[in-house]
Amino acid sequence: MSSTSILPKVADPKASIAEERRAPSFPIRELTYWIDGGERTTRLKERIMLELERDPLWRVSDHPNLTLAETRERAMSKVRRLADLATSRPLEETMLRMSIISVVDPGFWTRFGVHFGLFFGALQGQATPSQLAYWMDKGAMSMQGITGCFGMTELGHGSNVAGLETTATFDEAADEFVVHSPTLTATKWWIGGAAHTASHCAVYAQLVVKGKCYGTKTFVVQLRDTSTFQLMPGVNIGDLGKKMGRDQIDNGWIRFTHVRIPRSHMLMKHTKVTRSGEVVEPALAQLAYGALIQGRVSMVSDSANVAKRALTIATRYASVRRQFSDGTPGAPETKLLDYPIHQHRLLPLMAQTFAMIFTAREVNANYQRLMGVLSELGSDAKGAAVDEAIKDLKETHATSAGLKAFCTWMCLNIIDQCRQSLGGHGYSAYTGLAQAYSDFAVHCTWEGDNTILTLQCGRYLVATALEARKGQPLPANLAYLKAALSKDGSVSTNSCKGSTPEHVSSLDMLKAAWSSVAANAIVNAVRDFEAGRAKGLSKDNAYEHSSASRLHAARMHTYTYLLHRFAAQVEQSPEALRPVLTLLAQLFGAHSAVQHSGEFLQSGFYSGSQIEALKSFVNHACIEVRKDAVPLTDAFGYTDYVINSPLGRYDGDVYEKYFELVTSLNPTKPIPYFDSLIKPLLERTNEIETGPELEIDQE
Amino acid sequence: MSSTSILPKVADPKASIAEERRAPSFPIRELTYWIDGGERTTRLKERIMLELERDPLWRVSDHPNLTLAETRERAMSKVRRLADLATSRPLEETMLRMSIISVVDPGFWTRFGVHFGLFFGALQGQATPSQLAYWMDKGAMSMQGITGCFGMTELGHGSNVAGLETTATFDEAADEFVVHSPTLTATKWWIGGAAHTASHCAVYAQLVVKGKCYGTKTFVVQLRDTSTFQLMPGVNIGDLGKKMGRDQIDNGWIRFTHVRIPRSHMLMKHTKVTRSGEVVEPALAQLAYGALIQGRVSMVSDSANVAKRALTIATRYASVRRQFSDGTPGAPETKLLDYPIHQHRLLPLMAQTFAMIFTAREVNANYQRLMGVLSELGSDAKGAAVDEAIKDLKETHATSAGLKAFCTWMCLNIIDQCRQSLGGHGYSAYTGLAQAYSDFAVHCTWEGDNTILTLQCGRYLVATALEARKGQPLPANLAYLKAALSKDGSVSTNSCKGSTPEHVSSLDMLKAAWSSVAANAIVNAVRDFEAGRAKGLSKDNAYEHSSASRLHAARMHTYTYLLHRFAAQVEQSPEALRPVLTLLAQLFGAHSAVQHSGEFLQSGFYSGSQIEALKSFVNHACIEVRKDAVPLTDAFGYTDYVINSPLGRYDGDVYEKYFELVTSLNPTKPIPYFDSLIKPLLERTNEIETGPELEIDQE
Repeated sequence: MSSTSILPKVADPKASIAEERRAPSFPIRELTYWIDGGERTTRLKERIMLELERDPLWRVSDHPNLTLAETRERAMSKVRRLADLATSRPLEETMLRMSIISVVDPGFWTRFGVHFGLFFGALQGQATPSQLAYWMDKGAMSMQGITGCFGMTELGHGSNVAGLETTATFDEAADEFVVHSPTLTATKWWIGGAAHTASHCAVYAQLVVKGKCYGTKTFVVQLRDTSTFQLMPGVNIGDLGKKMGRDQIDNGWIRFTHVRIPRSHMLMKHTKVTRSGEVVEPALAQLAYGALIQGRVSMVSDSANVAKRALTIATRYASVRRQFSDGTPGAPETKLLDYPIHQHRLLPLMAQTFAMIFTAREVNANYQRLMGVLSELGSDAKGAAVDEAIKDLKETHATSAGLKAFCTWMCLNIIDQCRQSLGGHGYSAYTGLAQAYSDFAVHCTWEGDNTILTLQCGRYLVATALEARKGQPLPANLAYLKAALSKDGSVSTNSCKGSTPEHVSSLDMLKAAWSSVAANAIVNAVRDFEAGRAKGLSKDNAYEHSSASRLHAARMHTYTYLLHRFAAQVEQSPEALRPVLTLLAQLFGAHSAVQHSGEFLQSGFYSGSQIEALKSFVNHACIEVRKDAVPLTDAFGYTDYVINSPLGRYDGDVYEKYFELVTSLNPTKPIPYFDSLIKPLLERTNEIETGPELEIDQE
Repeated sequence: MSSTSILPKVADPKASIAEERRAPSFPIRELTYWIDGGERTTRLKERIMLELERDPLWRVSDHPNLTLAETRERAMSKVRRLADLATSRPLEETMLRMSIISVVDPGFWTRFGVHFGLFFGALQGQATPSQLAYWMDKGAMSMQGITGCFGMTELGHGSNVAGLETTATFDEAADEFVVHSPTLTATKWWIGGAAHTASHCAVYAQLVVKGKCYGTKTFVVQLRDTSTFQLMPGVNIGDLGKKMGRDQIDNGWIRFTHVRIPRSHMLMKHTKVTRSGEVVEPALAQLAYGALIQGRVSMVSDSANVAKRALTIATRYASVRRQFSDGTPGAPETKLLDYPIHQHRLLPLMAQTFAMIFTAREVNANYQRLMGVLSELGSDAKGAAVDEAIKDLKETHATSAGLKAFCTWMCLNIIDQCRQSLGGHGYSAYTGLAQAYSDFAVHCTWEGDNTILTLQCGRYLVATALEARKGQPLPANLAYLKAALSKDGSVSTNSCKGSTPEHVSSLDMLKAAWSSVAANAIVNAVRDFEAGRAKGLSKDNAYEHSSASRLHAARMHTYTYLLHRFAAQVEQSPEALRPVLTLLAQLFGAHSAVQHSGEFLQSGFYSGSQIEALKSFVNHACIEVRKDAVPLTDAFGYTDYVINSPLGRYDGDVYEKYFELVTSLNPTKPIPYFDSLIKPLLERTNEIETGPELEIDQE
């Protein structure tokens, strides 16, 4: 039965990973350059990774063992180093450094980003030139004199900025605004940097002038005296303490009690308040939304970058870890990566990661181009160029909303799937993915809650379809709607003809399949919206009525968008890379289609047997991609320092290094409560008090 | 545009939740009794919850602010209290207390469970009567003299117990076993209680007698001197430090270097080693597996219990939290719970939770019955009763494997969806779901990695189908396979005829639909297995070959099982509860079917338009269940102490109590690093060293 004369053989992990690199199907270094956008960027990234690794301030392997107080202090100790580098080095290098830090040390990235991205970003986006000059002069860019935070969300109000309760009431006599928190729910909440770091805050408050409310505008309010950090009069601040993740950033709450600021502290690039209390609103309020998109666009890159790390850890470990033998006596156990089920767990996630990498690149480029156009136009421009830009902005706004939501959800799932694939070791704080999950999770909530963003995206899709029906041209990314809309709103019956795995899974076929299903989903959402209108619902309520199908339309559109961007990048890629990238793009499209097979069957694009053929293709693609799995993680180009997990080491020496890390961070000490708790437990005798025998019981 | 003369109105949260309780469609208290299994149990639970709440040892609201060292010490301080209660109070009460603690304080539950469940459980299940008496006499049950841990997993070996490297070699001359860790990967790893708590360990090691290996058996090894806690000779122990969650339990690693134990320390209920080194293996090794199932079965209940808490928090908060207004001037913002999309987020999870509640109850009862039968039979029994019991055990083993996997995944998803539904506040450590996620996540890995368990379940399904084809009777839970198998292995073309939402979503129709799809999935897995065999693969490799479809079959079977158990409980429920429970069961079945619509379309059970009708039913059911949403959470019967989240309070007073909790746990203190880090940052001047002017440059 279970008796055998031979004990299991243990394989050398370093040899196990080395054999994975023997014959990659593509030139690894060339893929790295292609992912990074050129050799120059790769070399710059490598320089930055080395600088971080060697700087003792940037030690990260001991993070799990720091207390909250130590975590925050460690983070603060790095702010100055980075502020100096940010002001002395080229912007491109700073951006690249931040993108690496967002993977290595995401909590610190937020600590730093609150000042540079949010506070200073608010000044850049919403201050007039003279206001910006004033704050720059005070040191607001380089943190010399001013540290800033961003006071938008409140205890009772998050995504709905229009519902904020904090007021900034104009006192004409004093030429001042009075900033006030009228209720408990008006307390500014989640304000990163407020608990410890910030001297000033960009406060979102309802502008009230002469008894009339003009909606939320932004006001700079000093929180603390910069030489003592004593709170300013009327400012009340508290610490929000422990969070799910990102404890490097000191989130706080702020209450304002009739705090007075000069009128000039309202940021007036868009809406202006004159000395006499006249409120001048901008002609093109929409142009102010451009800045909102930046955070979302950057989260697509961030999702890709974090997913790259998670997959590197999971894939390399799976090439080293062995479990169960195939029965050959004396043979080593089988590598996890050789199990079909493990390939199915990891390799579709690899394909998703590439989809996000390439989409992030295109979306970033589009965003930069659009911002260039907008900044050239200025906020008072008119004419066709402005109409065009606004249209473009709307589309980018909606697309980035959908991408932000589905890419952050996708990445969060990738982190957790990768963590689970490590088995028990995924539960250790020292293998890197537990904390990655906790740190990343907030991406699904901030900069617009994912569910709300998907609905915004869906609303845009419905509105665009309705306008297209009235003759408006479709934006390029929605060109696929054309066929569906041409037939009185009925859905295209476009369908796949062949039945072989090769035929159903060609990149062109998958693009057509996804376009067809996305068009179908949008048409269904339009139908639900119109059904609501037909019942007499208001436009807003009709949109509510169609929210389930709107969310679905946004999902289908976003997957379609990801596949098309991925495919476009594959077409432009160097020839040597094209086979493996094509396979990954097909795996992304086919696996996602199998996951949503109901949509494809309902739309009639694929039949049941074609779905079976797609599944066969997914099996085949997993087997093929598996051969390149470790080389693909090598191409991501992260050093062991950035990977920061003994299980994801380049050299595969996982057990030795994991053991070393755990033992060095947790040296053996006497058990602190042996005498006080354990010894008394072991030595106790349970003498139950029975009480004296009662006379009355003797009778 | 955005200007308005009226600021948003703030609604009273307590009034908001009170209105939810005005007209429940069912008697709340009666549902509580039904969920708990009777009024007596409810009252006992309430007594235990009150006792815990009032016992200062059991304060849990400050957990997020404890360091790792404090967390462990706090946990140890509770061990004695619970050990005393466990030995002095009835078993039923202890079990109930533990089930409440598994929700309130899951890390402590593990700290305690390692001794009572795993170590003492190993003695109960694997010791002979005289061995058990010996260890009982030493105080192994009540922790008077002995604290135990469970030494199964190793650094290089988790789920594959057969692959463990630790050896226990019989030294006949000394009548001793020598326990030894031959390699680094043989180091016992993840051993809960090893770092600080345990004096003894139940060690899994390869039994080696006269040069022959007999597979893994269990040996009791003393780790520490019980009066000093000094390590025993040859025992080397370290601390695994910080984990993703459950930091209350002190996991450690253990290395054995030629540690000698008496022969009688091998647990010999099943395999025996005589004085002369004869190894006597048991006739019915399978009967030993019964004990393995217990952990899995209890995780179905645990999933239900944890999900109840998560949904209570998310649902109550959604009835209080308001966001965006419907445009009516001066009206309060809309409750989250009134948004269709929020209903779609939470209420299908509510239905899943009820499915788990009722399934857990049936599975527990079946398990208890089976264990009773097995213990009556004894390990040397023979005949038809034994065959029957083994068959029953196999089925329970497979079913519980699938249930453990899909229920723990379901619950983990419920926790995270509920957390995300809280918006930013879900990211606070004080709102209860971030930690719940981290604590619960390990359930997907321990007691059998979920993916491996699903494959085991799938293998059983395939094997059973193959046997049924040869004429073996089908177990009751797989009776649905009969139709599919009767036609030479082709799939049943059973399908739904009507098209109205009522027709497609009746409970009987949904049960038939899921049975049909599960049968289909199993037949597909059989087909893939047989295709592998036809290609000449070994049985094991053919199973590998079919692992994707096997996993899928296990998922479909488990959902079907959940729906059938849920429906069976609904049928038996009191009349007053039946309408709401029926609706929830339908929502579970219909929503799950929509999520997997591809399967239903491919099997031909539902057509595309019937799937649309199912979606309509889901919309309708969400609207209906929404009316009872808060009363349903009330029926779960958790006190505010167990909920342990200001956002899930019974009275809805979320903002006041959240603010109080955060401020009381994080009192304002001077910023610890202002002088050392912030002031120098703000006051720095960036004087860049330019160096002296060089003479050579003057020319």
